[in-house]
Amino acid sequence: MILSALLTSVAINLGLCLLFFTLYSILRKQPGNITVYVPRLVAEGKVEEGRQFNLERLLPTAGWVKKAWEPTEEEFLSNSGLDAFVFMRMFVFSLKVFTFGAIIGMFVLIPINYLGSQLTDDSDFQHKSLDSFSISNVNNGSNRLWIHFSAAYIFTGVVCYFLYYEYQYISSKRIACFYSSEPQPHQFTVLVRGIPIPPGGTCADAVQSFFTEYHPSTYLSHSVVRRSHKLHNLITDAEKLYKKLTNLKQKKDAPKRQTREGCMGLFGPKVDILDHYERKLGNIEDNVRMEQSSLASKEVPAAFVSFKTRFGAAIALHIQEGVDPTEWITEEAPEPHDVYWPFFTVSFLKRWISKLVVFVAYISLTIVFLIPVAIVQGLTHLDQLETLFPFLKGILRLSVVSQVITGYLPSLILQLFLSFVPPTMIMLSSLQGYISWSQIQKSACTKVLLFTIWNIFFANVLSGSALYRVNIFLEPKEIPRVLAEAVPSQASFFIAYVVTSGWTAIASELFRLTTLISNFISRTFCSNADNDFEPPSIPYHSEIPRIRLFGLLGVTYFLLAPLILPFLLIYFCLGYIIFRNQFLKVYVPKFETGGEFWPTVHTSTIFSLVLMHVIAIGIFGLKKLPLAAGLTLPLPILTLLFNDYCQKRFRPIFKHFPAECLIKKDRADENEHNMSEFYDKMENAYNDPALMPISYSERSDSHRSPLLYSNQV
Amino acid sequence: MILSALLTSVAINLGLCLLFFTLYSILRKQPGNITVYVPRLVAEGKVEEGRQFNLERLLPTAGWVKKAWEPTEEEFLSNSGLDAFVFMRMFVFSLKVFTFGAIIGMFVLIPINYLGSQLTDDSDFQHKSLDSFSISNVNNGSNRLWIHFSAAYIFTGVVCYFLYYEYQYISSKRIACFYSSEPQPHQFTVLVRGIPIPPGGTCADAVQSFFTEYHPSTYLSHSVVRRSHKLHNLITDAEKLYKKLTNLKQKKDAPKRQTREGCMGLFGPKVDILDHYERKLGNIEDNVRMEQSSLASKEVPAAFVSFKTRFGAAIALHIQEGVDPTEWITEEAPEPHDVYWPFFTVSFLKRWISKLVVFVAYISLTIVFLIPVAIVQGLTHLDQLETLFPFLKGILRLSVVSQVITGYLPSLILQLFLSFVPPTMIMLSSLQGYISWSQIQKSACTKVLLFTIWNIFFANVLSGSALYRVNIFLEPKEIPRVLAEAVPSQASFFIAYVVTSGWTAIASELFRLTTLISNFISRTFCSNADNDFEPPSIPYHSEIPRIRLFGLLGVTYFLLAPLILPFLLIYFCLGYIIFRNQFLKVYVPKFETGGEFWPTVHTSTIFSLVLMHVIAIGIFGLKKLPLAAGLTLPLPILTLLFNDYCQKRFRPIFKHFPAECLIKKDRADENEHNMSEFYDKMENAYNDPALMPISYSERSDSHRSPLLYSNQV
Repeated sequence: MILSALLTSVAINLGLCLLFFTLYSILRKQPGNITVYVPRLVAEGKVEEGRQFNLERLLPTAGWVKKAWEPTEEEFLSNSGLDAFVFMRMFVFSLKVFTFGAIIGMFVLIPINYLGSQLTDDSDFQHKSLDSFSISNVNNGSNRLWIHFSAAYIFTGVVCYFLYYEYQYISSKRIACFYSSEPQPHQFTVLVRGIPIPPGGTCADAVQSFFTEYHPSTYLSHSVVRRSHKLHNLITDAEKLYKKLTNLKQKKDAPKRQTREGCMGLFGPKVDILDHYERKLGNIEDNVRMEQSSLASKEVPAAFVSFKTRFGAAIALHIQEGVDPTEWITEEAPEPHDVYWPFFTVSFLKRWISKLVVFVAYISLTIVFLIPVAIVQGLTHLDQLETLFPFLKGILRLSVVSQVITGYLPSLILQLFLSFVPPTMIMLSSLQGYISWSQIQKSACTKVLLFTIWNIFFANVLSGSALYRVNIFLEPKEIPRVLAEAVPSQASFFIAYVVTSGWTAIASELFRLTTLISNFISRTFCSNADNDFEPPSIPYHSEIPRIRLFGLLGVTYFLLAPLILPFLLIYFCLGYIIFRNQFLKVYVPKFETGGEFWPTVHTSTIFSLVLMHVIAIGIFGLKKLPLAAGLTLPLPILTLLFNDYCQKRFRPIFKHFPAECLIKKDRADENEHNMSEFYDKMENAYNDPALMPISYSERSDSHRSPLLYSNQV
Repeated sequence: MILSALLTSVAINLGLCLLFFTLYSILRKQPGNITVYVPRLVAEGKVEEGRQFNLERLLPTAGWVKKAWEPTEEEFLSNSGLDAFVFMRMFVFSLKVFTFGAIIGMFVLIPINYLGSQLTDDSDFQHKSLDSFSISNVNNGSNRLWIHFSAAYIFTGVVCYFLYYEYQYISSKRIACFYSSEPQPHQFTVLVRGIPIPPGGTCADAVQSFFTEYHPSTYLSHSVVRRSHKLHNLITDAEKLYKKLTNLKQKKDAPKRQTREGCMGLFGPKVDILDHYERKLGNIEDNVRMEQSSLASKEVPAAFVSFKTRFGAAIALHIQEGVDPTEWITEEAPEPHDVYWPFFTVSFLKRWISKLVVFVAYISLTIVFLIPVAIVQGLTHLDQLETLFPFLKGILRLSVVSQVITGYLPSLILQLFLSFVPPTMIMLSSLQGYISWSQIQKSACTKVLLFTIWNIFFANVLSGSALYRVNIFLEPKEIPRVLAEAVPSQASFFIAYVVTSGWTAIASELFRLTTLISNFISRTFCSNADNDFEPPSIPYHSEIPRIRLFGLLGVTYFLLAPLILPFLLIYFCLGYIIFRNQFLKVYVPKFETGGEFWPTVHTSTIFSLVLMHVIAIGIFGLKKLPLAAGLTLPLPILTLLFNDYCQKRFRPIFKHFPAECLIKKDRADENEHNMSEFYDKMENAYNDPALMPISYSERSDSHRSPLLYSNQV
């Protein structure tokens, strides 16, 4: 790729960014779009849909950027929770790292690279290959490489310092958040599985007698889990039907609430359909009640057991309970609304098999994905394209077309294919037997991260001429050399990738284009769209892997091709503003892992540092400076030791809270809160929502009494 | 190796066994040898040294074999502890496995192998190569290989059944032993390290206030650890001097206690030396007191913290205590007399470095050991020896000499070199920072086991022509083929190895030759030997690896060369009788891990099964029966899944006791024992013995009061 192709890409993306920025600034002020641009505030009732018209509505303004900066970290934390805070710290951390990297890169490394003459590229500045700005252009054996050597050491030191600071800061916040939290049921509860049910007895009796016997002073109550899969399906049906019905009634009775709702009014239903639907709903409700009453016999040998103190719950969690370790297995309970109920219907064996299936599916997907990667690779080799489609020769020779195709298209196509990955991984993870949505998200995040790093980074790097080089991982000694040969040649592709997909992501996030379009579609074709309104929660499983991939690219190419750094800096800067805005106004935290995503960020940064070192060792070797290669060797070792220390020092805090915290917090609770009231609430917190009484149809008031509370059976 | 060479070896060893058996039967009855043959009974005061002479003393009798069989398992368990019991179960398990294996091997596999004609060995029966009895002799592609295939499945199934039964049996015994045990200080105590000492405060204060704050209802007392390395050295000096002195005095004053003590009386000391020694002892005692009184300021940030209940100790053990995970680190306390005090003088950094050094030393030793292995290999290739030493040609051509050299000498030399390994590993492990002797033994046991399996099995197998084949482990697909080519060729060596080193070990164990000789030497040259008398404890770190190596050989060669099985059967049968005897009369359990050695046995057996499967896959491939190779593939997978289940089902019981057991036992204690008396005893249980008052010299009665109890400072 030559400089002008990069500039074309930059221009296209800057243009798009500006366009979207303007559009956003105008569109966000239109009252009709309020549920798209500030859904969180709508849901919290902080914004009313306005109707007055004024001219300012049609002018782009940047006031929202200022507003995004206003809240302090504390306000942000209390407003959006620790997970959102950690997500923002990821941007802050990356900004720090890449500001430092970009300064060294722009003012030291790029000039040195450009002054080299290894590549003998005689074209004028505009047509210079991007490689002229990379380490490839430094002459073999040149003493200037020692500056790169020092840069590697300094950069690693600074990144490690930032990593340590951030880990410490976030873990202190995690502890502080815990201290300042209100008592929450999941802090007092453990999930117990593998309950041995005595012949003739019930699960509830077994739980009751076991915990009264062995945790008499702290045991409070329990909720036995039931096989409610069928019930969940029935209730979903009922809810859908109820919504349809309400909608139809509104259409029929009320005056049109808003003009925009009427556009499809022409096709409004006949009135006798109402009766039909109401009868159907009544039937479903009867089925639900029947199913609910038959659930008593459908116990799963699992229960949520609540304790009077957090420390009491921690004791049951950490110490093996029964003599047989496959019985009375305890694990942390998720927040009540975070529980993934369908999981419980799956037996141990089925879960075990589905885990295996998911693993195989994941591996297969990773392999199949090499096809789009190969297509993208093909696009960067225009000559191959010309051979395949000779009639395109004329068009392809146009410099603008070739620049778009090599500089913009490949990463856009890759981006398109990549967008299917996160939902697929969520699906795979949900089959794996996790008991909560947050665990599914975390597992999907890791899956996407590994998938992205492998498929985008390694497959791209190694596929150039030798996808078959995968076996180098079986010859550890050869890894630095092979990587050092392969990685730099892909630098220009990744620069284009960051510019295109990074900024496109920002732009699409900025305007939430997909939401806008889907909103438009739903408003046009389904008249009940508004009733389904619910503010979205941040898709961590797709955002974190993207940001980490960019982190990986930045750190890996810091030494090789520092040109990538300024573009990353812009990406992280834009991302920081956008995500800060849209946490405050768009995303609603649906669950809280307490910042458990941070260790992932830490580990992946360490991985990229070590990858950089390995490549640096290879590069110094190829550049005939074996002394520098040898002296770089301690760097990955020191980095890994640093990581080891960090994991020992901070990781346990992200797994469980220590006794000191739990006991302090328990004592504070006793003084500050009315705990007996909280205990009463907690008793029903973990009841399966499917067991709650339902009553949608109007004729059924007499049926509204609860039929079954799981902990009363 | 040919059959007659094997028979020579068998003859030599049977002869030796018989000789030693006779010698033992006579020698054990001589009163002078009582401390060699029944030291345990002497130490327990159950046997008095007799003096009467009768003729029966000079005749070999086998009554002791009968006596060894008499005690039931329960008696054995209560007499020798769970570790000894597990050790014996290892023999029982091996006997079961190899009885089954030998039946199939002798009556099915060997006849089938011998009927094959692949090797075209036309010599008469006596000169047949041992390979004629191995799978190598079965014709390629023969359908008879399917019998081997079925044998592999059946044998694996039976071994897994035995493994499961044994794991279940031993874990039930472990729980039962726990329930029936008296209250012991280490069950109520945890070791706390990384205690943050507040400026100006002491470690004792910090511990006291922390545990009173966070474990108020269960905390009992603590003993702070002090840097007592110098003190330990001083006390050792004092003890040596005191022994010397007592001895000299006895020599001077008393009439000779036993005739055998007099043999060196000629060189008895002059009387004025006594005065000199007494003055020296007094000086050392003064030094000890000075050092003891200065210890108050030499606190190590570690303490043994005792609780009122076992469950209380378990809570402190399992839940991270402080906010900073590098502080208040808890681990299980060893038994008081099992504590390895010198460890505490080593700082965290020094321990970390010594771990690294030990690791490097271990790897180096493993590599250096290839030299004796190579020598042994050389001996089995007589032709090479002839080339090196042409003048030996005549002697080497004698059939008896060549049979001794190829059949007996190699394994004897190997055995000699191997005998240095266990003490070396104990030394390495003691440098590693373990806090108890039992942990050092366990760690050394693992080290020796890995060392043995690698150096004896793999190095021997792979060194034949290609020690450089080690890199096959980087090409997983090639492993079965390479092993299948290399392993069978070593079968005859290993058969000889089992016959020689196994039986030699049994013989030397039977007569404890080394002890006998060293006893003779010490009695002859150092007249104070008897005062040092202490019954030995079983050296698990050398015995378990040997037995496991034989297990590995038996399982691996079950299919390849079943001829090994009868010899193993004899080994295990002899071993069972001998070790049962001499546990009852010789070894005294010095510490009790509660059967924690069993998981090692289980894992190593699974390893040998999988190794057998891998080799079987390779063999079936080489023998042109790819279908059988393919159908064997599920076998290692099923075995590993079985192992996974076993580890989930039983492993946790061997790590910690579950809440159910702890609480039940705590409650039983309250009813059965006078706990307040036990608590009083426990308060001083973990005081460093070096801090106890000493008084050897007679003039220092006034100094006998204790100067320092660590928990009172």
